[in-house]
Amino acid sequence: MYTVSDYLIDVIKFIGNDHVFGVPGDYNLEFLDHIVDRNDMTWVGNANELNAAYMADGYAKKTGFAALVTTFGVGDLSSDNGLAGSLAENVPVLSIVGAPKTENMDQKLLVHHTFGDGEFEKFTKMHEVMGLKVKDLTAQNTVDDINEIVKYIIKTGKPAYLTLPIDVAKIPVNPSIKESFASFFNRDEEVTEFNNTIAERLVQAINNASHPLVLVGHELKNRQLAHFIEKFVVNNNLLFTDLGLGKCALNESLTQFIGTYSGALTDEPTKQIVDKADLVINFGAKLTDFVTSMFTQSFTEEKIINISNDDFDFFGSHRDLIGDYSFYQVVKAISDKQLKQPLTNTVELNPVSPATPSDKVLTQDFYDKAVINSIKPGQTLVAESGTSFSGLSPFTLPDNVDFSAQPLWASIGYAFPSMIGGQLADNNSRHVLSTGEGSLQLTIQELGTLIKHDLHPIMLVIDNNGYTVERLIHGMKKSYNDVAKLDYTLMPQAFGAKQDQFMIFDVNTESELVDALDKAQSTEDKFVLIQVHMDQEDAPSSLTKMGEMIQNKNN
Amino acid sequence: MYTVSDYLIDVIKFIGNDHVFGVPGDYNLEFLDHIVDRNDMTWVGNANELNAAYMADGYAKKTGFAALVTTFGVGDLSSDNGLAGSLAENVPVLSIVGAPKTENMDQKLLVHHTFGDGEFEKFTKMHEVMGLKVKDLTAQNTVDDINEIVKYIIKTGKPAYLTLPIDVAKIPVNPSIKESFASFFNRDEEVTEFNNTIAERLVQAINNASHPLVLVGHELKNRQLAHFIEKFVVNNNLLFTDLGLGKCALNESLTQFIGTYSGALTDEPTKQIVDKADLVINFGAKLTDFVTSMFTQSFTEEKIINISNDDFDFFGSHRDLIGDYSFYQVVKAISDKQLKQPLTNTVELNPVSPATPSDKVLTQDFYDKAVINSIKPGQTLVAESGTSFSGLSPFTLPDNVDFSAQPLWASIGYAFPSMIGGQLADNNSRHVLSTGEGSLQLTIQELGTLIKHDLHPIMLVIDNNGYTVERLIHGMKKSYNDVAKLDYTLMPQAFGAKQDQFMIFDVNTESELVDALDKAQSTEDKFVLIQVHMDQEDAPSSLTKMGEMIQNKNN
Ligand SMILES: Cc1ncc(C[n+]2csc(CCOP(=O)(O)OP(=O)(O)O)c2C)c(N)n1
Ligand SMILES: Cc1ncc(C[n+]2csc(CCOP(=O)(O)OP(=O)(O)O)c2C)c(N)n1
Repeated sequence: MYTVSDYLIDVIKFIGNDHVFGVPGDYNLEFLDHIVDRNDMTWVGNANELNAAYMADGYAKKTGFAALVTTFGVGDLSSDNGLAGSLAENVPVLSIVGAPKTENMDQKLLVHHTFGDGEFEKFTKMHEVMGLKVKDLTAQNTVDDINEIVKYIIKTGKPAYLTLPIDVAKIPVNPSIKESFASFFNRDEEVTEFNNTIAERLVQAINNASHPLVLVGHELKNRQLAHFIEKFVVNNNLLFTDLGLGKCALNESLTQFIGTYSGALTDEPTKQIVDKADLVINFGAKLTDFVTSMFTQSFTEEKIINISNDDFDFFGSHRDLIGDYSFYQVVKAISDKQLKQPLTNTVELNPVSPATPSDKVLTQDFYDKAVINSIKPGQTLVAESGTSFSGLSPFTLPDNVDFSAQPLWASIGYAFPSMIGGQLADNNSRHVLSTGEGSLQLTIQELGTLIKHDLHPIMLVIDNNGYTVERLIHGMKKSYNDVAKLDYTLMPQAFGAKQDQFMIFDVNTESELVDALDKAQSTEDKFVLIQVHMDQEDAPSSLTKMGEMIQNKNN
Repeated sequence: MYTVSDYLIDVIKFIGNDHVFGVPGDYNLEFLDHIVDRNDMTWVGNANELNAAYMADGYAKKTGFAALVTTFGVGDLSSDNGLAGSLAENVPVLSIVGAPKTENMDQKLLVHHTFGDGEFEKFTKMHEVMGLKVKDLTAQNTVDDINEIVKYIIKTGKPAYLTLPIDVAKIPVNPSIKESFASFFNRDEEVTEFNNTIAERLVQAINNASHPLVLVGHELKNRQLAHFIEKFVVNNNLLFTDLGLGKCALNESLTQFIGTYSGALTDEPTKQIVDKADLVINFGAKLTDFVTSMFTQSFTEEKIINISNDDFDFFGSHRDLIGDYSFYQVVKAISDKQLKQPLTNTVELNPVSPATPSDKVLTQDFYDKAVINSIKPGQTLVAESGTSFSGLSPFTLPDNVDFSAQPLWASIGYAFPSMIGGQLADNNSRHVLSTGEGSLQLTIQELGTLIKHDLHPIMLVIDNNGYTVERLIHGMKKSYNDVAKLDYTLMPQAFGAKQDQFMIFDVNTESELVDALDKAQSTEDKFVLIQVHMDQEDAPSSLTKMGEMIQNKNN
């Protein structure tokens, strides 16, 4: 019999997913049957729910959707922080929470995974307060409710939450309804006059500017809308920049790219070009503290047109434009627009000076250049918050390279599972992760998942004796910035890897690192882990300055 | 200068804690200075926030209080599920969340660890919806607010939540206020006439009963009030039982103990005694699904007097008693009461039949008996949800042995960090943990903390190829009940243990297990890890039945 469970999974499949993330529990086991019993879907089976949510986030960034399944209360709340990150950074994840049988909830039974108070609705309410669209599925309107929540995710690029009671999951559904999928879940929208007007005003503003600059952001990227702006930028030879948040929204090897901007700490010539801009068109970027070096961007409101996921404004106001705004439509409308006359911009970016390795003890500055130099076209670089993000995000990346990080929500431990999610979504793009040992420990158990699925990313673990990024903000020598001394070279085996599945390097010097990176890149059929030792107070020079800036903002 | 930070930490110290749990972040770093800069407090420094919350819970169960420090948003939400468990099972944990500077929040800055929407109050609201007492500390009434929240924890035994902005933490406080600590945080309460009346009615009811039975629960235990009831029970020779939830609230070696009750699946003679009872006086127990074998207790409302943390009732109603109820006062009042005539009860419990080890492959039934046999007086047995809890909780434990589990909230991964918390709180009671490999992987990184603090518990890891307890409920052979194949024997070294800090056993047979347990018990100065292999479908016989019962309830 075709049931709500089957329907929900067919929806997920239709939207383009082959994987579902999560952890089983007795309130979702029967739903999981419908995943593992079909051969076009993989149940990933995470080590815990927070990691599952991070992994779903990494997957959704690549595919435009991801589904996460947890069990009531315990699994749901464990995944909270991951889902909150998806909300903060506009990543379309659907959280499906298996709930007790409706009858048992109605009877307010003292069942496990509750507060023993008969109140089952608290969990959904908590997520509503967080800012998620939520829905408790019931026997009534089940299909409509599922459709509504999934359409919301598609139309907004935001995560959403639903609870699925055991009995509701089993309700029969007429399978013919699947024939309407293409109309239900159509991502395309026809451009209304209103949204076209916005696009035209924008073009007009560019025509009137002397030094227009496009800024592309994470909202554009995570909603898979970047190709629209790429076309516009390339056709009109418009200069563009990105931020650490949403970096690589557009291919950074395009000749129109001026480098990644990060406020006052930006390198030349990027900084100078931004400073000179008399118009900044922001497509879905957020100017948050970490990616603007604590709000030190040179342009002010009067110079910005914001075309954002939720809203738009021209120089701080909507002006006279009132109507039904759609990010998608405006961006789509812009795609084919032509400027009055093509621009004649050219930029000469500083190439990353090739790092000549010596036998000197590694520094973060050398490390960053060496890692950037090692990245091949088409790969994905994932950088954890901390020295990795600060050190790597300023560099321009090769053709078609993707970059992933979480600089707004900035939850450490995120990068590792999210990298695995990305690798599962796109196994053609080898993922290279740079993380700190302080961060990796939060979510290290997902190594078991990586190995079970036999993935082959490259993982660099910076072992610098603790939370260096925190040291730079406060408490340079304080014991709370120390962490347990782990031996990452033993981890693959401890988490189940067979000898021929992985390769390990333990590096201390410049040449050891370069050598390890070379071998890692040429060994494409293994998981490669590089443990990198660095001094506990060493950091990318920009981060040292950022540390002071953050401290000032906190004081 | 003496500040709010100092005050808050002095309060924690006054209440009797030497340890604070949590993870640093830039919104709490300066607060942490005030912990690590004094030599009478230990900052535990967890691997992640969920584990920190679990560990604080384990600590609070032993000490009656624990403090947890996290950073805004990311750390806070990561710890949620742990705090929710404390709420569900009445464990007094104070969650202190470091927040951005008040001015930055007022300006709605797009700072890290937020949704980038300028809304900082969502997090507190989420916790309020969960059911916690919450407080956002501000420059006004800071000391009063702290006092109010801490008094609440003391008076209710429940967790609570407060946010501490960076600037508020630095506000000067007059240190002389510490002189009032003894009056502010006095746990003792004088018994009012109203509460004494309840106690007297209760005694009267016992006097009128032919077969009265006392049931002691987790609320009594976690609020450290069991000694009051122990006195009453012993003086009057009253029979008592406990449940898996709150097991060992009273010393199970008392002659009045009739064994642990678990509804229809209870062994004789315990079951018979409970079935015969014409009056059950419930002191702080909750009759939840798992600990009553799905609500199969033999006594009904008309036989029960509930003296619970939040409320009381006589046979389902308050009758004519209206007044200010205090669990503490009623329990204290009962302590010294005498029955009309002392009872002449005697019980003969079945001793655990000593397991005679063979070279046969281990079964869960043998395992449970062998583990129980190995436990020494004064030790603490911690059992994870799953086969461990189901197998071990029915047995009567030796003199002064404590038992810890989480059968209502039942979040797997809880047992390991909570065991470490208990061991830190009471290093005189060696902790013995029994957990499953499916559960342990959720929180395994806390091994680094265990090793850093050089603790010496015994840890048994049941490796039965996945989630056996789930298999018994649904999906016996389904792949979602498999887990990554980890090698726990490599874990101590991977997580930083030196060769002389630990001992490892990898056991497959009965005699190997008994041998390992003997050696573990006689090696008190090392951490001992025993990896125990069992068949994937093997389970304690009671759990097999429970699995069917749960399945029926779900269907
Ligand atoms: C979940 C969570 N907890 C705490 C923090 C606070 N925090 C930010 S960076 C950091 C330290 C990162 O250390 P590590 O990964 O070792 O990086 P590095 O030493 O290279 O800077 C911490 C604890 C956070 N961002 N997220
Ligand atoms: C946080 C959380 N996620 C999921 C569950 C659902 N669950 C309950 S028991 C269990 C399996 C436990 O397996 P294991 O520890 O290996 O125990 P055993 O095989 O001995 O039963 C799972 C996944 C839960 N209780 N808590």
